[in-house]
Amino acid sequence: MKTVVTIGRQFGSGGHEIGSKVAEHFGIPFMDKELVAKTAKESGFCEEIILNHDERPTSSFLYNLVMDTYSYGYNAAHFVDMPISHKVFLAQFDAIKKLADEGPCVIVGRCADYALNERDNVLNVFIYGNEEQKIKYACQRFGYDEQKAKDMCIKKDKQRQSYYSYYTSKKWGRADSYDLCISSSALGIDGAVALIIKAVEQFEQV
Amino acid sequence: MKTVVTIGRQFGSGGHEIGSKVAEHFGIPFMDKELVAKTAKESGFCEEIILNHDERPTSSFLYNLVMDTYSYGYNAAHFVDMPISHKVFLAQFDAIKKLADEGPCVIVGRCADYALNERDNVLNVFIYGNEEQKIKYACQRFGYDEQKAKDMCIKKDKQRQSYYSYYTSKKWGRADSYDLCISSSALGIDGAVALIIKAVEQFEQV
Repeated sequence: MKTVVTIGRQFGSGGHEIGSKVAEHFGIPFMDKELVAKTAKESGFCEEIILNHDERPTSSFLYNLVMDTYSYGYNAAHFVDMPISHKVFLAQFDAIKKLADEGPCVIVGRCADYALNERDNVLNVFIYGNEEQKIKYACQRFGYDEQKAKDMCIKKDKQRQSYYSYYTSKKWGRADSYDLCISSSALGIDGAVALIIKAVEQFEQV
Repeated sequence: MKTVVTIGRQFGSGGHEIGSKVAEHFGIPFMDKELVAKTAKESGFCEEIILNHDERPTSSFLYNLVMDTYSYGYNAAHFVDMPISHKVFLAQFDAIKKLADEGPCVIVGRCADYALNERDNVLNVFIYGNEEQKIKYACQRFGYDEQKAKDMCIKKDKQRQSYYSYYTSKKWGRADSYDLCISSSALGIDGAVALIIKAVEQFEQV
């Protein structure tokens, strides 16, 4: 097995659990929040700062500032002026690339598909579900009440979508941004795991 | 095996071939252009008329006309005033429902997922691919030159997208409009077939 699996996911769809089970099946590293510690270790940023900016878009104002900076090209001087959110993104980007260099693994979120888009051993997966099932899952997993789960589904997906759209040239949740998209509501958590395992086998034959 | 598989697809992604192989594997009916003859037989429309409107959106003017008609509710009187494209759509819609009543089958395109959205034994799949592979596939399959293949990919997908968006409440090509989305470029035609077969097995267990 030589494939790196990246997993984008809607909040409450079980993407974390699915990715973790796939990694366990293949006996390879699993990185979700674990990437925060790795990025901290390699970049020198403290974990708290990375957590604060983890998969969160900055405000529009900062977006524009970054865009202005970037339109003059990237160099060390600009890095100094760069908003912290963007520095954290680049540090995570580097950590993801190093991780993939070390061997097969499963990486959840954080635009890992985009960070690794020049490698050909990467299978990009997206996990989603219907609203009812996602709310039920979030209540069970995080102990939310129904309203809180509903709010979190909307809030987190909005954040992930903005983050992804800002940093990549692809659209979050559009089928053709990924190699394989699975509804965990239709196919179940274990069904999704089985399908990804099968897909890795097929992918390594193509 | 009791599942009806519907397949939405980008032009040149091999959705027809994949669907046909899935149907062959399970020994169940396969319906792509075959649906035209069935619709003709059941509705009394001649095949030529159905073909002319098959998965093609009407002009905006006719769209509006239909919308106006529909805002007063559907009844026999309005059916008389309805544009032919819409009558053909409804006839196909009925043919798809009858087909699903008869037992498991594979249906390609024609908003079959939407026609069958009240049934719970339906697995909705979307097949897509990258531009380079789709052009190559269309050249091989239909004998097009590269420019013609490229033009057809754009034209047909635009038609399918408009048709789908007009008649359904979902978005064509968005992952969460389907249960499973597979890139035939990443996973191959036979890989996609194997994944759908596996997905049907999982789906019948959930």
